[in-house]
Amino acid sequence: MASESGKLWGGRFVGAVDPIMEKFNSSIAYDRHLWEVDVQGSKAYSRGLEKAGLLTKAETDQILHGLDKVAEEWAQGTFKLNPNDEDIHTANERRLKELIGETAGKLHTGRSRNDQVVTDLRLWMRQNCSKLSALLWELIRTMVDRAEAERDVLFPGYTHLQRAQPIRWSHWILSHAVALTRDSERLLEVQKRVNVLPLGSGAIAGNPLGVDRELLRAELNFGAITLNSMDATSERDFVAEFLFWASLCMTHLSRMAEDLILYGTKEFSFVQLSDAYSTGSSLMPQKKNPDSLELIRSKAGRVFGRCSGLLMTLKGLPSTYNKDLQEDKEAVFEVSDTMSAVLQVATGVISTLQIRRDNMARALSPDMLATDLAYYLVRKGMPFRQAHEASGKAVFMAETKGVALNQLSLKDLQAISPLFSGDVSRVWDYGHSVEQYAALGGTARSSVDWQIGQVRALLRAQQA
Amino acid sequence: MASESGKLWGGRFVGAVDPIMEKFNSSIAYDRHLWEVDVQGSKAYSRGLEKAGLLTKAETDQILHGLDKVAEEWAQGTFKLNPNDEDIHTANERRLKELIGETAGKLHTGRSRNDQVVTDLRLWMRQNCSKLSALLWELIRTMVDRAEAERDVLFPGYTHLQRAQPIRWSHWILSHAVALTRDSERLLEVQKRVNVLPLGSGAIAGNPLGVDRELLRAELNFGAITLNSMDATSERDFVAEFLFWASLCMTHLSRMAEDLILYGTKEFSFVQLSDAYSTGSSLMPQKKNPDSLELIRSKAGRVFGRCSGLLMTLKGLPSTYNKDLQEDKEAVFEVSDTMSAVLQVATGVISTLQIRRDNMARALSPDMLATDLAYYLVRKGMPFRQAHEASGKAVFMAETKGVALNQLSLKDLQAISPLFSGDVSRVWDYGHSVEQYAALGGTARSSVDWQIGQVRALLRAQQA
Amino acid sequence: MASESGKLWGGRFVGAVDPIMEKFNSSIAYDRHLWEVDVQGSKAYSRGLEKAGLLTKAETDQILHGLDKVAEEWAQGTFKLNPNDEDIHTANERRLKELIGETAGKLHTGRSRNDQVVTDLRLWMRQNCSKLSALLWELIRTMVDRAEAERDVLFPGYTHLQRAQPIRWSHWILSHAVALTRDSERLLEVQKRVNVLPLGSGAIAGNPLGVDRELLRAELNFGAITLNSMDATSERDFVAEFLFWASLCMTHLSRMAEDLILYGTKEFSFVQLSDAYSTGSSLMPQKKNPDSLELIRSKAGRVFGRCSGLLMTLKGLPSTYNKDLQEDKEAVFEVSDTMSAVLQVATGVISTLQIRRDNMARALSPDMLATDLAYYLVRKGMPFRQAHEASGKAVFMAETKGVALNQLSLKDLQAISPLFSGDVSRVWDYGHSVEQYAALGGTARSSVDWQIGQVRALLRAQQA
Amino acid sequence: MASESGKLWGGRFVGAVDPIMEKFNSSIAYDRHLWEVDVQGSKAYSRGLEKAGLLTKAETDQILHGLDKVAEEWAQGTFKLNPNDEDIHTANERRLKELIGETAGKLHTGRSRNDQVVTDLRLWMRQNCSKLSALLWELIRTMVDRAEAERDVLFPGYTHLQRAQPIRWSHWILSHAVALTRDSERLLEVQKRVNVLPLGSGAIAGNPLGVDRELLRAELNFGAITLNSMDATSERDFVAEFLFWASLCMTHLSRMAEDLILYGTKEFSFVQLSDAYSTGSSLMPQKKNPDSLELIRSKAGRVFGRCSGLLMTLKGLPSTYNKDLQEDKEAVFEVSDTMSAVLQVATGVISTLQIRRDNMARALSPDMLATDLAYYLVRKGMPFRQAHEASGKAVFMAETKGVALNQLSLKDLQAISPLFSGDVSRVWDYGHSVEQYAALGGTARSSVDWQIGQVRALLRAQQA
Repeated sequence: MASESGKLWGGRFVGAVDPIMEKFNSSIAYDRHLWEVDVQGSKAYSRGLEKAGLLTKAETDQILHGLDKVAEEWAQGTFKLNPNDEDIHTANERRLKELIGETAGKLHTGRSRNDQVVTDLRLWMRQNCSKLSALLWELIRTMVDRAEAERDVLFPGYTHLQRAQPIRWSHWILSHAVALTRDSERLLEVQKRVNVLPLGSGAIAGNPLGVDRELLRAELNFGAITLNSMDATSERDFVAEFLFWASLCMTHLSRMAEDLILYGTKEFSFVQLSDAYSTGSSLMPQKKNPDSLELIRSKAGRVFGRCSGLLMTLKGLPSTYNKDLQEDKEAVFEVSDTMSAVLQVATGVISTLQIRRDNMARALSPDMLATDLAYYLVRKGMPFRQAHEASGKAVFMAETKGVALNQLSLKDLQAISPLFSGDVSRVWDYGHSVEQYAALGGTARSSVDWQIGQVRALLRAQQA
Repeated sequence: MASESGKLWGGRFVGAVDPIMEKFNSSIAYDRHLWEVDVQGSKAYSRGLEKAGLLTKAETDQILHGLDKVAEEWAQGTFKLNPNDEDIHTANERRLKELIGETAGKLHTGRSRNDQVVTDLRLWMRQNCSKLSALLWELIRTMVDRAEAERDVLFPGYTHLQRAQPIRWSHWILSHAVALTRDSERLLEVQKRVNVLPLGSGAIAGNPLGVDRELLRAELNFGAITLNSMDATSERDFVAEFLFWASLCMTHLSRMAEDLILYGTKEFSFVQLSDAYSTGSSLMPQKKNPDSLELIRSKAGRVFGRCSGLLMTLKGLPSTYNKDLQEDKEAVFEVSDTMSAVLQVATGVISTLQIRRDNMARALSPDMLATDLAYYLVRKGMPFRQAHEASGKAVFMAETKGVALNQLSLKDLQAISPLFSGDVSRVWDYGHSVEQYAALGGTARSSVDWQIGQVRALLRAQQA
Repeated sequence: MASESGKLWGGRFVGAVDPIMEKFNSSIAYDRHLWEVDVQGSKAYSRGLEKAGLLTKAETDQILHGLDKVAEEWAQGTFKLNPNDEDIHTANERRLKELIGETAGKLHTGRSRNDQVVTDLRLWMRQNCSKLSALLWELIRTMVDRAEAERDVLFPGYTHLQRAQPIRWSHWILSHAVALTRDSERLLEVQKRVNVLPLGSGAIAGNPLGVDRELLRAELNFGAITLNSMDATSERDFVAEFLFWASLCMTHLSRMAEDLILYGTKEFSFVQLSDAYSTGSSLMPQKKNPDSLELIRSKAGRVFGRCSGLLMTLKGLPSTYNKDLQEDKEAVFEVSDTMSAVLQVATGVISTLQIRRDNMARALSPDMLATDLAYYLVRKGMPFRQAHEASGKAVFMAETKGVALNQLSLKDLQAISPLFSGDVSRVWDYGHSVEQYAALGGTARSSVDWQIGQVRALLRAQQA
Repeated sequence: MASESGKLWGGRFVGAVDPIMEKFNSSIAYDRHLWEVDVQGSKAYSRGLEKAGLLTKAETDQILHGLDKVAEEWAQGTFKLNPNDEDIHTANERRLKELIGETAGKLHTGRSRNDQVVTDLRLWMRQNCSKLSALLWELIRTMVDRAEAERDVLFPGYTHLQRAQPIRWSHWILSHAVALTRDSERLLEVQKRVNVLPLGSGAIAGNPLGVDRELLRAELNFGAITLNSMDATSERDFVAEFLFWASLCMTHLSRMAEDLILYGTKEFSFVQLSDAYSTGSSLMPQKKNPDSLELIRSKAGRVFGRCSGLLMTLKGLPSTYNKDLQEDKEAVFEVSDTMSAVLQVATGVISTLQIRRDNMARALSPDMLATDLAYYLVRKGMPFRQAHEASGKAVFMAETKGVALNQLSLKDLQAISPLFSGDVSRVWDYGHSVEQYAALGGTARSSVDWQIGQVRALLRAQQA
């Protein structure tokens, strides 16, 4: 009774609350992150109430002023939580009442925590997604700058982790940058669906007091309003989409991290991670470990775990608000923090990474030109399938003889096909090889330049 | 050796293949679904080779004709697979060679299975996503039609599965329809990213023979071409996105199914499922089970499992093509089939469902108007928090007295607040109650009409 | 340089560390939970070093004494973290050095953080699993006690959420209790695999200084030692198993919660949740929401998300220790806390729940005896399939006539089958019905008693 | 209607069934795999009915004989499915009736498809788990044999994919074999919980006809009977456990595959995959790709996807049987097939893999002995932390001078610590290095032998 009376829903209950249940139910430990947007939402709502005639101008001013005071306390770290403040909404309203008295009790008119919390979360995510967008663009830009600067470095391209064909190092960088532009495009789409106002939906049935939702939308600068109050208060698509966006982006970064971890091994020795992004071993003095990259790779699991968890929570839930939905916020906060750190660390890694051009060059070997050898025959008129088989025989012959593919004599080659002649020697030039791949998207210099231009244009368009 | 010579990669190998490994490696059992798009892609590619001067007009015609013959055999069910046909690409090319001879060996010039398979998959998915879009629109349209027809039926709205406030039955239908419009919007975005051409990316480095990718794009009617050949052959974002799209859509349908299962229980008795979507019990003669809805609910798990599985497969994979990516197709095929069935069954369920208006009406009870009672006091000038508490006291008093909330006497109410007067009786009208919720998105008739209009407009826009 | 010198791996590095990377890499924010077990492990290890002749008796005593001091500071909340304390191991050793000087530098001899951290985690989990076991047993015991006390209450059993057959309320309670005994059995198996000592595995190759791992095992009271040092430092099976254990247990609890949420609706009205485990609405004064049960249901998602995340992190990881494994601890801590709260709240809910016997009785209806009607005919010699069909016809006839199944006249029934006679009236007794199900595991009183005995015996055996 | 009359639940329904719904609902496409166990279960049940007096000896014989006939038709591929056979239970009973007439209708007395299907699934899985156990043991045995044979091969041990310390190749093999012994132990535990009989639980309430479940258990050779009929018919713990078992086992195999893919790169060149487990490229003649290993790695995703999907399906399901549970079988069948193939392919890979001893030896470098250098100082009395720092300085000095660590002069070393003397040269012997790690679980030969003995003993114990 008395002990319950400070709760928003206190009027009717008579029992005591189990302290473990109390803690289980409380969300203040994490939803306090919403303090600023909660105040923001309440300010807009009080203006809505004023227009609807439910608050006088004086009352509205009193509430706005009080809310500014609440925000100030949070900003200065002087806001004091009460044990009864089970969530940020209760806390802020309780404090408002202490500051301005009974008028505070008018603020919740026609509003429910159901529409309030989802408005807060959307406001918070809108802001946060913008930050993540900027960090993602920064990463992509860093990659493109690097790709542009190191366009003339060649190294082995791999498929199945087996050396395949010579490519430009920039082509590799761009392969990851291009993947990230899709994440960036998707994030804009998520933001579009985050940026829809649910306020004015009440608990389930809508708002009964003539509050002008279009005014609320404009006050809070949302792009649109939700269409149905039952859906508005209980759908968490925008959360699920955000978590999936992060999961897919992390999948890309995990693949880039994997590549760089490999390229940084003693065996590959193509890149050297900056000390700033490495750590040592407590036991082995010679070790320098790519912890930054391993952590990026591992976070793909954590982030997807949150996505997975939320979808399981949503599955089969009866419609409208159920307390199950309280699971949304911690997932969003954790994933946002993780993405922010990962994107910045990845940018740092890419911008400080050293490449070892000599090792890269040394790793190119003539067998990687076997496809080019086949193309040589194709250009002489042999159908590709036969040319592929002929080149395969040359590879086998070289292996059998224990020599490099380019060390087979013309006679050796002619035993395989009479189409081989002296000009075959031009095949064994890596620079010449990459320049063949001039179709759009290929590894020729012109195509790499085209890619750089395309990605830069995309970034400009997305930022607009 | 001899036994290997029919394989695309046969020239070099000397060992025998483990039959279990052979089956493990083979994808023909499922990728045969791609026969049509594989032919389509090869026809476009042969035109590309012709333009690049690698095929003569006569050779091109021969190949095109041969490919049409291959397609005809598949269409008529007369195509015979060889034991060596490990995938659809091998099978089709092998057959082409049988039909037209050595010229067939020119078709693969500059192409790799890496760019071929992902082109095929995108073609298949593009077609399939259109079908799913149409089925989804059909479902939404059915829901909106029903919502329009049954606009005047009221029943209890629930939050936390507890009776909350009276709402229109159409408001409930629309809450699910509106959720599905987001799925429909998202599917268009997925389709946009599916509709990008990777052909001409080769195995990793691009195309070295001057094939005009813009021509290939136009031939196959893609919206754009991929930017980077390494990324193009190994990214499966469009698959992951499709699987997630399906997962989130299934989450919505699982929630609608859950509601309908509940509403169809003896206890709720709001709806009756058509016999066409129910089944009986092998043991209990009186049972009529909502199997259709339970299966819809359960498929949310299956579909998400596929999404989850693919993302795990992608995590930490080295860049470019790895055989791991072969997991993509079965996931796509299974999920596509499931979505197609689910959407059609859901449409059937919604269109044949009977509602029980009398039970719906009977389930409305005065305690659901407690919020309206509070609003009554708010309109008399009491701050909402006090009004909420006063209304809570009335609920408690009614419970204590063992009467319905609307059976409290005026005197009883006035003991709680002197603001109560004779006009409180108007609160106890459910029709009056719902009409209060006239703000956009609420359950008033005008708002429900607005929602119907909005969803219809969305559908029209999306179909355009 | 200087700034790095406090790090365990400081000797060699020359660069500065990015502060975001520093935070990204640091685990002290959460692994401080391991302070006690870290000290415990270090004490055992110092005894191992003493026995191996690497510490003198005096040095060992000094270290042991110092470690006790460290523990005391943690226990009293006076331990002060340094900015350089990136993890609990560094922090404790740094403090030890401050307390006892250079001798502290001998403690890590032959030990690596790789074997140290996994030893700590196993010690922590061993303790925690015991606590969870006890909480789970308490929940099961509460359920069995309740089942015993309310054995004579009948209510409808449902399949497909449709009323199926009359059952005992205790039969329902036991169905969930029995599921939990499997969780309890599984937890013992997990504990067995947690309780294996990895200490003495070093970073990868083992311990080179003759440390007696059997002594370490005995000191720390482990059941066995790990077999292979590479596996020991990098396998997290016991974590994955624990997370899956929790996921499956939560699945059970989510199903029980779902049942109780349904049974607590106005429509079912079989149970009433204690106020201590309910909350109200900020908008609707009449609402009493089953938040405790909804949170239990939702946590199934969160917990599985952690399991899912860890497995994705582990997938495809190169063998031995990689920093990716650092993801293990937060998952364990969060899931342990969640399980602890969930089990206690569930126990509270079950022990304070009120049942509404009259509503339960009222919900039994004659159509639920249709199977019994079929059995009546079976006992008269009709094959079950025909009897099932005959009973189905009776149900249909009653529905058509708009009467209850038991209100069909004998003549009506005889029109369906001449085997019906006057004694059919005995079918319509719910008490008689449930007593038929006397085979083990059924809902007859004798079988329910047997179940109670079996579960009690299991609990006794597991606790032994 | 007429068209429905062949269905088990046909008596009452009047509507027509949507053909898409019919297919959606039907499980015969996959549950036909259960034909044998379904017959087996039915034979046992008919004996139970005979003992309960519900079948005469003659009827029982007739049914048993008929069921044998049904099984024979399946075995010989002559069983013909009807369009109305929606599942294997319906199909078998329908055929039985055709073969023996109305007596067939007695077989289902007191049985429900709910207890029938779960009995079938348990029988099938029991058999299948035994097969998988044997395959897993075969793989482990192959690994241990190989470890024993190649005990004297040294190569680099890695942590964080950076060269760490010299280890035995056998130590690496055993690290994976030991992980698999835990899978093998867990599978036995899963089998224990699979091997519990649910038959006699009916649809929900139990068996009302005095069927002796202990007799059924003995007939079908189960280890125990289920305790509660509601739980028995709707719990799928054993399925979830099996799927998780497979997921964790696949995680192990994915890590082993990742190692071998790396070791098989040109850059590492430690192992060469047999041609039998490799494939070539359709474009690049020189390529030999580790497809077998990549597929193993990828299947970890697929298998976990099934586990994930099932748990999501189970989450929040009301208790007892719901049609959602029908999702269990395809998951089990697919995962069983996958595990069977993966285990056999892994065994093939391991048994045919060639190692390149010279490359392995060449990859050992003096810096990997930096820890040994520190231990050298420790043995001279320096605290480990100082020794670690001193060794780190030596590494840095060598890097700065551009020489190998073992090429630092004694004078150089003494500049770092006066404790260095001439005997430091003994540190630079890899064979000597590994022999230091003689504590149990380490890489010394004695410890590797001990590990081999331990794993062999485990296998013997598990097979018993």
